[in-house]
Amino acid sequence: MPLEATKPRNAPAHSGIEILARAQRNCDPLLRAAVVSLPEPLATMGGYHFGWWDPERSSTPATQGKFVRAALTFATAAVCDGSEESAAPAAAAMELLHNFTLIHDDVMDRDKTRRGRATVWSVWGITSAILLGDALHSLAIQLLAETDLMEQSLALSIISRIEKSCLKLCLGQFQDCAFEGQVAVTVDEYLQMAGAKTASLMGTACALGALSARADDQTVSTMERFGYQLGLAFQAVDDVIGIWGDATNMGKPVGSDLVRRKATLPVVAALNSNCDASTELRELYRSESPTTYRDVARAIALIEAAGGREAAKHHAEERLRAAIALLPEVPAAAELIALSQVVVDRSR
Amino acid sequence: MPLEATKPRNAPAHSGIEILARAQRNCDPLLRAAVVSLPEPLATMGGYHFGWWDPERSSTPATQGKFVRAALTFATAAVCDGSEESAAPAAAAMELLHNFTLIHDDVMDRDKTRRGRATVWSVWGITSAILLGDALHSLAIQLLAETDLMEQSLALSIISRIEKSCLKLCLGQFQDCAFEGQVAVTVDEYLQMAGAKTASLMGTACALGALSARADDQTVSTMERFGYQLGLAFQAVDDVIGIWGDATNMGKPVGSDLVRRKATLPVVAALNSNCDASTELRELYRSESPTTYRDVARAIALIEAAGGREAAKHHAEERLRAAIALLPEVPAAAELIALSQVVVDRSR
Repeated sequence: MPLEATKPRNAPAHSGIEILARAQRNCDPLLRAAVVSLPEPLATMGGYHFGWWDPERSSTPATQGKFVRAALTFATAAVCDGSEESAAPAAAAMELLHNFTLIHDDVMDRDKTRRGRATVWSVWGITSAILLGDALHSLAIQLLAETDLMEQSLALSIISRIEKSCLKLCLGQFQDCAFEGQVAVTVDEYLQMAGAKTASLMGTACALGALSARADDQTVSTMERFGYQLGLAFQAVDDVIGIWGDATNMGKPVGSDLVRRKATLPVVAALNSNCDASTELRELYRSESPTTYRDVARAIALIEAAGGREAAKHHAEERLRAAIALLPEVPAAAELIALSQVVVDRSR
Repeated sequence: MPLEATKPRNAPAHSGIEILARAQRNCDPLLRAAVVSLPEPLATMGGYHFGWWDPERSSTPATQGKFVRAALTFATAAVCDGSEESAAPAAAAMELLHNFTLIHDDVMDRDKTRRGRATVWSVWGITSAILLGDALHSLAIQLLAETDLMEQSLALSIISRIEKSCLKLCLGQFQDCAFEGQVAVTVDEYLQMAGAKTASLMGTACALGALSARADDQTVSTMERFGYQLGLAFQAVDDVIGIWGDATNMGKPVGSDLVRRKATLPVVAALNSNCDASTELRELYRSESPTTYRDVARAIALIEAAGGREAAKHHAEERLRAAIALLPEVPAAAELIALSQVVVDRSR
């Protein structure tokens, strides 16, 4: 009996994990060609950030990114009958853009660890990290401006959409920083921030997949909304992992969001829940004194007691459902669903 | 007798100062439309940086940029028989890109003053300045990706050239920072750094003027070399002004390059001059102790004694001559020459 016959009907041909790995393999040649084209020492820093080598450019295995955005572009292209080849420049550009923003975010947030290793700024300093981020932004656009894998009108339209979502991302990151230590952030304000910071780029990743498959405007718009809803789910899960995640899988210290008093969804939901725990949490977030380990432990208990964890998980499930409801009934949608599920049901 | 007849034959129709002012007027609508399209508070920060208003967005007259790069694009387009209208998107994009890099440079260099006012990071903090820079980078590209003032193939080619010179600029800024406090930098190394940091972008400004006039490849390349040579002259003059300039005109503290022990051309030339003054200057630059006003005054005297000021001025004149020698013998070249002269013979 052939192997396929053992699978249930309508099961995706590949698991979410396999789809992410394939996206990484498909982007790899374009990403490497772009990053190694940088003048030194930017190429070394770039490859270090992507997990290809250590700070001395010796090959050492390191955790790489998840390639969620590239995978969304490829999987959406497949839903719209597009090829992996024609989606590859957009997928690689999305990863370059995403990583540029991670490198700048780490500077702004003073995060010392990412993917289990020292961040670029903590190895080479803030100047180098700002410049490397700027350079990856340029590489993302250059890759699209110079590709011969798509028509010029399509390349321009993709470039324009990428920059539009980059502008939203700048606003979202600004709001995220501005919300730190604020106790009056509403769930709507959080959603607007998370929409700008995370969901817009994931919406764009899906729109680009549809565009590179030459889908019609309505399909592009539907796929963008799919990615946006999934992005909101993704951010809510990220927020939960930031508090209750496993440090080994996360690649960054658990509780750092709480130390910085960030307005993540569990916190915002808890603060708006109107109970004894939310009152105590509000006092803790308002405090001017440095946050201790004891404060973090207490905050975690209060957020849980005020229903913040449950609310965030519920929100993520709702957004995931809303996303999947937007998908067309075609066989290739199974892979996009599998990818969505692994994105939301993850530990890092 | 008509007024024109009083002018000498072959005199430019407009002075360098007038050409800069016209470039600013021609860019203004595109620049303003781009910057005010930013989500708040980025629009307010952007307009503040451009000198349009104060930090509360009340209109207050402030010194604006010189618009050298935009003026080069327009004047080069004119030399190649192009129109101001078709050169405007490239000129405005050049100014957006240039200003994005200024905002990031101020963060890296911790410069508190630019154009006589507090820098963006010193008003709103480092996070805001990094995000505003990123946003202006996006706006520059978006302006070109969405313009209907040029063909798509031309827009893509301009985008690609702009990102290529942005990558060079990242390298140049990295080297400039890495050279701080170094006493062994050679004049060749300085020229390579100044070429990447300043001259490449000015070469690109001229290449884009020629491109937007649909000039042939050889003309584009010649105009790029013209801008590159002029850029080297410009940076040498900038280095001289940084030491011997008038603080009122400069908009930033005189001597700050020396306090940071930057490897500017007068310093590098002096350090490589092999005389008593250069030996003493080397000791001063090597010193680990904080630089005092007395150190700065002494350094200025030593650089002058070692011939650093003279060498930088001579270099600027040479590069200007080399630039002008590249220009075609057409009437419109007179304006580009007038512009070049005002760029090199300036006080801020």
